[in-house]
Amino acid sequence: MTADDLESTGPAPAQRPAGRPRSAEADTAILTAALDLLIELGPVQTSIEQVARRAGVTRATVYRRFPDKTTLLVRTLEWANHDHDPGFTGWRDIEHMFGDWAAYLCVPRNRVLLRRIYATVDDYPELGSTYRSVNGGRRAAVVREILCRTRDLGLLPRDIDVDVVQELLSGAVMIHVGGHPDGESAEEIKTYFLRIMRQVGYRPPVAKGRERI
Amino acid sequence: MTADDLESTGPAPAQRPAGRPRSAEADTAILTAALDLLIELGPVQTSIEQVARRAGVTRATVYRRFPDKTTLLVRTLEWANHDHDPGFTGWRDIEHMFGDWAAYLCVPRNRVLLRRIYATVDDYPELGSTYRSVNGGRRAAVVREILCRTRDLGLLPRDIDVDVVQELLSGAVMIHVGGHPDGESAEEIKTYFLRIMRQVGYRPPVAKGRERI
Repeated sequence: MTADDLESTGPAPAQRPAGRPRSAEADTAILTAALDLLIELGPVQTSIEQVARRAGVTRATVYRRFPDKTTLLVRTLEWANHDHDPGFTGWRDIEHMFGDWAAYLCVPRNRVLLRRIYATVDDYPELGSTYRSVNGGRRAAVVREILCRTRDLGLLPRDIDVDVVQELLSGAVMIHVGGHPDGESAEEIKTYFLRIMRQVGYRPPVAKGRERI
Repeated sequence: MTADDLESTGPAPAQRPAGRPRSAEADTAILTAALDLLIELGPVQTSIEQVARRAGVTRATVYRRFPDKTTLLVRTLEWANHDHDPGFTGWRDIEHMFGDWAAYLCVPRNRVLLRRIYATVDDYPELGSTYRSVNGGRRAAVVREILCRTRDLGLLPRDIDVDVVQELLSGAVMIHVGGHPDGESAEEIKTYFLRIMRQVGYRPPVAKGRERI
């Protein structure tokens, strides 16, 4: 969609689906613009004025929905991390999980977003805590469950400290995003996580012909 | 020292040590101010003007030494990470190393600086690469050597991948700095690193009476 003329008083643009409320279009345009600017410029240099201009709405339209920049950016993160993926129910197994992480982390835009969120700790602590509660909260529980299941299958040492390994994996994501070049392939990134898991005693299931046991 | 009047044309302040060149005082005042502002405000919001004001010098004095903000901040990081600790020769053993890391990481100001550096990747890539080459470069070699020595002493698995474990430890630092509260004690932080090392198979030397074997 384009956000042009969302605030115009003229007739609705022909391409707007009938029955779709104009305010939902403005919401999407504002949140899309805010996410793009957060990634491009970071939270310090993003302003309500720029968001309004990019979204093709007036500043008043933004302020009616979001009283200040922090509220807007917090809502943007909730929207980007939750609303876009409401059907997330988990991963089949740990290899599936790392494949999914790698697919996310090979997209440069996603990497910049993670760096921007990490970078906000001191200036906008609300952004970091929103990210942790929305994304981290529900995903963290699933990651933990996958690690426990992997251990119970005998693929991780019985005495492993699941909390510590989970924290290690978060650190591995941060170091990859902050220290590796943005051009790595999903395959390379998955291998990176598997090399780390090997150090904590992960032994993948032995292939039996083409089957996994 | 105070940096007041470094640029004045009047007589030198009485407290300035005889023979100490005025330009070295200005250098120190500028770098101190730049480091403080980098920590307080981050690189985006730090300006040459603010640095000059904080250092008690004119903008021209700053520009004569550092043609732009990036050059100034890069030099500030070199100075903060290298010049202050030129005699670093390594650690006795891995426990000594983690004790040293913990002593550094329990100081909130150091934690903010690490976050600020991490946060600059997208806006000021030169800062991150300076940090890595100055601090990371020489320290990384020493960390690697300690890990190899620990393995050779039989305290880590013989088949450990030292490069992966080193990367894991960098990730552990980032996650601690970004995700743990700033108030943890050095003892707690050292324990955090030892819990991580235990997951990759570290087994500390067994105490024999009060001796270590």
